Amino acid sequence: MKRKVTLKQIAKELDVSISTVSKSLRNSLEISEDTRQKVQAFAKLYNYKPNNIALSLKNKKTKTICIIIPEIIHHFFATVISGVEHVANENGYNVLVCLSDESFDKEVINMEMLANGSIDGFIMSLSKETQQKKDFHHIVEVINQGMPVVMFDRVTNEILCDKVIIDDNLAAFNATQHLIDKGFKKIALISTVDYVSVGKLRTEGYIKALKNNDIKIDENLILKIEDTENFEEAIAGLLANNDIDAIFAVNELFAVTAIKEANKLGKKVPEDISIIGFTDGIISKYSSPSITTVSQNGVKMGGKAAKMLIERLEAEEEDEEQYRTEVIETELVERESTK
Amino acid sequence: MKRKVTLKQIAKELDVSISTVSKSLRNSLEISEDTRQKVQAFAKLYNYKPNNIALSLKNKKTKTICIIIPEIIHHFFATVISGVEHVANENGYNVLVCLSDESFDKEVINMEMLANGSIDGFIMSLSKETQQKKDFHHIVEVINQGMPVVMFDRVTNEILCDKVIIDDNLAAFNATQHLIDKGFKKIALISTVDYVSVGKLRTEGYIKALKNNDIKIDENLILKIEDTENFEEAIAGLLANNDIDAIFAVNELFAVTAIKEANKLGKKVPEDISIIGFTDGIISKYSSPSITTVSQNGVKMGGKAAKMLIERLEAEEEDEEQYRTEVIETELVERESTK
Repeated sequence: MKRKVTLKQIAKELDVSISTVSKSLRNSLEISEDTRQKVQAFAKLYNYKPNNIALSLKNKKTKTICIIIPEIIHHFFATVISGVEHVANENGYNVLVCLSDESFDKEVINMEMLANGSIDGFIMSLSKETQQKKDFHHIVEVINQGMPVVMFDRVTNEILCDKVIIDDNLAAFNATQHLIDKGFKKIALISTVDYVSVGKLRTEGYIKALKNNDIKIDENLILKIEDTENFEEAIAGLLANNDIDAIFAVNELFAVTAIKEANKLGKKVPEDISIIGFTDGIISKYSSPSITTVSQNGVKMGGKAAKMLIERLEAEEEDEEQYRTEVIETELVERESTK
Repeated sequence: MKRKVTLKQIAKELDVSISTVSKSLRNSLEISEDTRQKVQAFAKLYNYKPNNIALSLKNKKTKTICIIIPEIIHHFFATVISGVEHVANENGYNVLVCLSDESFDKEVINMEMLANGSIDGFIMSLSKETQQKKDFHHIVEVINQGMPVVMFDRVTNEILCDKVIIDDNLAAFNATQHLIDKGFKKIALISTVDYVSVGKLRTEGYIKALKNNDIKIDENLILKIEDTENFEEAIAGLLANNDIDAIFAVNELFAVTAIKEANKLGKKVPEDISIIGFTDGIISKYSSPSITTVSQNGVKMGGKAAKMLIERLEAEEEDEEQYRTEVIETELVERESTK
């Protein structure tokens, strides 16, 4: 069977990044002329044709939309997919799911592959690596080609498009305030590193709530987890080395791990430590004790994103001036992990 | 924007099933001539063209494969996707994920949509509804068109293709035997209804183990859950109305629910009841107590399925006579839910 050379193979062969290949093929002035020529010559030699079906399919609607999610370990993204599927199917659209696996390259490859006429538009949440690199050229390209993109949850101000978010700062503020109202003073935060936009916003909300209540910020009680591989150990360390009476965790995996590690140290939840998580998923619901959590309402978020995308796809005129950002309300679901 | 009529719309308009539309458009003799003519006329009128990109793309490789999964609530399918992604990416292939949502119609629509040249081959696990209907014409069609399909987990003997399965019967037999070896006599089974192929096989393994050990089969201790909506109530009923010392559950959601419902009745796991689940997912790992479980090794299953598909895609000659069924070894992961 005849092989087709991929972006990835070109990048490997020429020892440049996928982003460089993608930009060179589009003749971006960000890339040196020398590199552009090299990439273009190689692509021509091996018959690489970006978007080579696009022409024949111009104006042809596929009635298919694609949602790109960073990962599927966290139940939140599964709930968003359900919401997207529901609204899309109601409107006669099919849904494809792509995983970027938190990788910039995979996000670029997936968008390149599908922006060629296979689908009508994208719903997406940025990968960690894309947020870290702040390289959004692949998304700008797609939008410039006239294909609508709706971003949700992990978004960026650097792209003009429709967005669906929650007020992460406010949600974290409210969760922390809830713990303060219950009388807790030594409240730890288990968050992600700051380049993950939602992690940063939730950390800010936590700090704001403490400051508002004149509680001193103790850096030892703020754990920012970089590598999900070792988060169990990091959480065990936080609990072992500090006197903590409550925890706010920015996802349910961190929250349930805090319960397990507290148990190992002979501390009971909620008797000795109260815990609030983020995301109302199956772990929060079925863990023992079940976990009090900030519900992001992923189904609603996905449904809203699908609605915005379909409205844009079916609009009579393009109305690029009026990109909207919808804010989904969160709520605190009280369960057994808080006193 | 110009609308394209979909299979679903044709079905709705003519008040027939999607399967009937799909078969009529292919002129299948299973469908009456009258219906075929009606469907074909309607499709022509509204410009429906099945597989209309296929011709231009014949012999063109997309280096993209699609995995169709029934649902994403159970972590098992997420692990299979990881395995598929890993092996596919290593070999320069991209992966699209489609959800059938346990619906026959969505399975048909997704396959129709993608078998038009967008992808090179399918990896799939059957939806509940497809297993119930025993209608596999859409899969046969795709295979007959020369597009390889690899089935995993929920497979059928009625389709000749490569398959990756675990020995569900043996895995369930071993799990039940493990409980018998520990001295338990009143072992309940929480399973799915029999038309779900794996549920049926696991039920058979459970019964075989009991019979082998001369333990009388008590139908009251066998719960077959039809509707996932009410499974909590059903499991609560099983526990409240019977004297049970151990449980074998065919998935982790049933296992963790059994723990919660036992707790509500004042029974402790594993002190009063031992529980073995199926699928080594995040619920089993993080629940308190953590759950002893049959690990299906979804990552390995997905990797193997991707390998088989890619080998077939890249084979020099077609070798249809030699379809293989690979059996992945399962293992019992002992944790805190068994004494």
